[in-house]
Amino acid sequence: MVSQASMQYLYDENGKKYLDCISNVQHVGHCHPKVVAAISKQLATSTCNVRFVSHKLTDCAEEILKTLPGLDTVLFCNSGSEANDLALRLARDYTQHKDAIVVDHAYHGHVTTTMEMSPYKFDHGSSLRQPEWVHVAPIFDVYRGKYRLANEDLNNPEKLEKAGQVYADMVKDVIEKAEQNGRKIAAFFTEALQSCGGQILPPPGYLKLVAEYVRSHGGLMVIDEVQTGFGRVGSKYWAHQLSEDDFIPDIVTMGKPMGNGFPVSAVVTTKKIADRLGGSVGYFNTYGGNPVACSAALSVMNVIKEENLLDHSQKMGELFHEQLNELKKNHDCIGDIRGVGLFWGIDLVKDRETREPDQELALQLILKLRKERSILLNADGPHTNILKIKPPLCFNADDVKNTVTALDETLKEMNK
Amino acid sequence: MVSQASMQYLYDENGKKYLDCISNVQHVGHCHPKVVAAISKQLATSTCNVRFVSHKLTDCAEEILKTLPGLDTVLFCNSGSEANDLALRLARDYTQHKDAIVVDHAYHGHVTTTMEMSPYKFDHGSSLRQPEWVHVAPIFDVYRGKYRLANEDLNNPEKLEKAGQVYADMVKDVIEKAEQNGRKIAAFFTEALQSCGGQILPPPGYLKLVAEYVRSHGGLMVIDEVQTGFGRVGSKYWAHQLSEDDFIPDIVTMGKPMGNGFPVSAVVTTKKIADRLGGSVGYFNTYGGNPVACSAALSVMNVIKEENLLDHSQKMGELFHEQLNELKKNHDCIGDIRGVGLFWGIDLVKDRETREPDQELALQLILKLRKERSILLNADGPHTNILKIKPPLCFNADDVKNTVTALDETLKEMNK
Repeated sequence: MVSQASMQYLYDENGKKYLDCISNVQHVGHCHPKVVAAISKQLATSTCNVRFVSHKLTDCAEEILKTLPGLDTVLFCNSGSEANDLALRLARDYTQHKDAIVVDHAYHGHVTTTMEMSPYKFDHGSSLRQPEWVHVAPIFDVYRGKYRLANEDLNNPEKLEKAGQVYADMVKDVIEKAEQNGRKIAAFFTEALQSCGGQILPPPGYLKLVAEYVRSHGGLMVIDEVQTGFGRVGSKYWAHQLSEDDFIPDIVTMGKPMGNGFPVSAVVTTKKIADRLGGSVGYFNTYGGNPVACSAALSVMNVIKEENLLDHSQKMGELFHEQLNELKKNHDCIGDIRGVGLFWGIDLVKDRETREPDQELALQLILKLRKERSILLNADGPHTNILKIKPPLCFNADDVKNTVTALDETLKEMNK
Repeated sequence: MVSQASMQYLYDENGKKYLDCISNVQHVGHCHPKVVAAISKQLATSTCNVRFVSHKLTDCAEEILKTLPGLDTVLFCNSGSEANDLALRLARDYTQHKDAIVVDHAYHGHVTTTMEMSPYKFDHGSSLRQPEWVHVAPIFDVYRGKYRLANEDLNNPEKLEKAGQVYADMVKDVIEKAEQNGRKIAAFFTEALQSCGGQILPPPGYLKLVAEYVRSHGGLMVIDEVQTGFGRVGSKYWAHQLSEDDFIPDIVTMGKPMGNGFPVSAVVTTKKIADRLGGSVGYFNTYGGNPVACSAALSVMNVIKEENLLDHSQKMGELFHEQLNELKKNHDCIGDIRGVGLFWGIDLVKDRETREPDQELALQLILKLRKERSILLNADGPHTNILKIKPPLCFNADDVKNTVTALDETLKEMNK
């Protein structure tokens, strides 16, 4: 039971304080005073929707577009699910194709179509099945995927580049096989970094190459930044900008961190694509682009700028890189460490050679850290063995150190 | 351009004041101070989602359930579209059937599935077509539908009851025809009162009878109260409760007025149905049921109680009934007046006998009222000839009189 939240801390009903390594939604910090003030002020001024034009909408769209060169149109929605559903509609209307390719273990949202595009759901007990219009490409995971790198090569740039090529070619195969079956691809969807699937970064070159393949078959490249956008990765505003500066998606979806807890999301694309949406009825969304949501997003973007959160996230990422790799040296149960900025995964294994996932250890660690160290961590991935770190961006150097130290000491106590 | 909004009034950038007859979302009044205060307070306390339990969620669910006897489970989402999509998933998982019956001209939302269930969209230029799993029943419209009443019988209770039977039998025919084609009905969806379709009230007996037919074929009865709930109809909390006290739907969806402008919606059903949702992965929605959304909904329900808004809406409905019928006597261009509480439609015609819709007059009236009288009205329905009145519930007796007088004087000036 959370009774209060402030920046990177949560408090239970007894006032006990917890360090929050989980809440990527509260992006610039739980209840950040500037964001609360901006939302509250707009709530008391007007909540009228887009039937009534407001300059908040245009201001917000302009701020977003500054971060996404090559794109020029923003459509607002309420949730990442709505944004991904709208991205599918845009791609279908523009290409006049129907099908989507998604990556294995991907999660794109909880409405019917986005569930149908989420192997994370339909492969794991959901009542929805993979429909014929959805094709699944292998996950670009050099640690657990179809094409793996040796332990000593996991950070080798040349080997990673080769892996990017191999995994992109697998997408090409999926496209060709689909076309042989008379299907046509409207879009390739992928999270910029895969989150629920286990904190996986696409190898360098992968996204750009996939975009070439998909476009050459008449489809669009859709990047889901719902979990990963707004500076979480440190050096760039968006995770898909990490490896190639000249890679420009056709559609980018964004959500969670955008409103710091206020429900708002968006689809960003080009006018050329947006103009073909929906036939003559177009698009209307009751709350989409309402001035309160836009005030929330604007103030989040302002705080990111004022507090230099990209720089900060980048620095915290460097600390995590260093300290987690040190941790790995001392604990054989850590098979892989991967991440960037304030987005990290710790892959727990029973055996470094076989890479057998250790779900039980992940769950024990989470419980012990919460009870004994007041640190909140979570696990995800298809085997629920990957510890996820994706805290509010105000997470500081002491928090990094405390988290890694707590992991170190707890693993020692457990003789792991 | 709206620069400020307060209760039933909007102000443009020059400070000019408008009477708002349109905004059903800002249900208890634009920027109602109590709702603003409740949301702002919670925003500064915690926005943590349902992964962290909050008593706001349980309090809010309990308050909603008090108004819906026979139902016991609430699932929270962000928008009416998400709620209707979830209702479809619930019905499909529970019945193990796939298809939906909707009413002609219905509108259930802007995500892919709900667009596919909205003849308002797919019959009017949308790029989405009616899929094979969607069946359309005739609209229960005694003025413009397949089964019409004579002008003098439009308010005759016996004739209306007969119409309810006739229209319900049409749904039965749709079910039987679908089954002959090997299809199975998961749910019948209808708005409790049809809004975008032209402010249409189902005739007495219709909903209950349709529910019997649908259930006897293994389907569920889903009532969409997104536009009509939370006391808008005056004598009852929900519009579907208007004619039969003992009619209990299987699923009720709600949205717009629920948060007074804050994005929140819900699906209410029974535990028996909810327990079968989603297979082993269940349901998760990032913002659904977050404590800010719940605080918004709770404070809306409190204001409804404290300010006796059901009583008030009922009384304003009686005034509208009286004054609009008087207006109709003086203007032949008004073919039909229909509504209840603060939900009214004025059906404009070129000829009372042929009932030919007069879209042009509707558009002219809206423009003149805005420019010359500072009153905001809207038109809807398949012919865009029906003036819609669905203001915030604080709309008072003077506002009713001013609106009707403005219509009267403007129509006189136009020699209509």
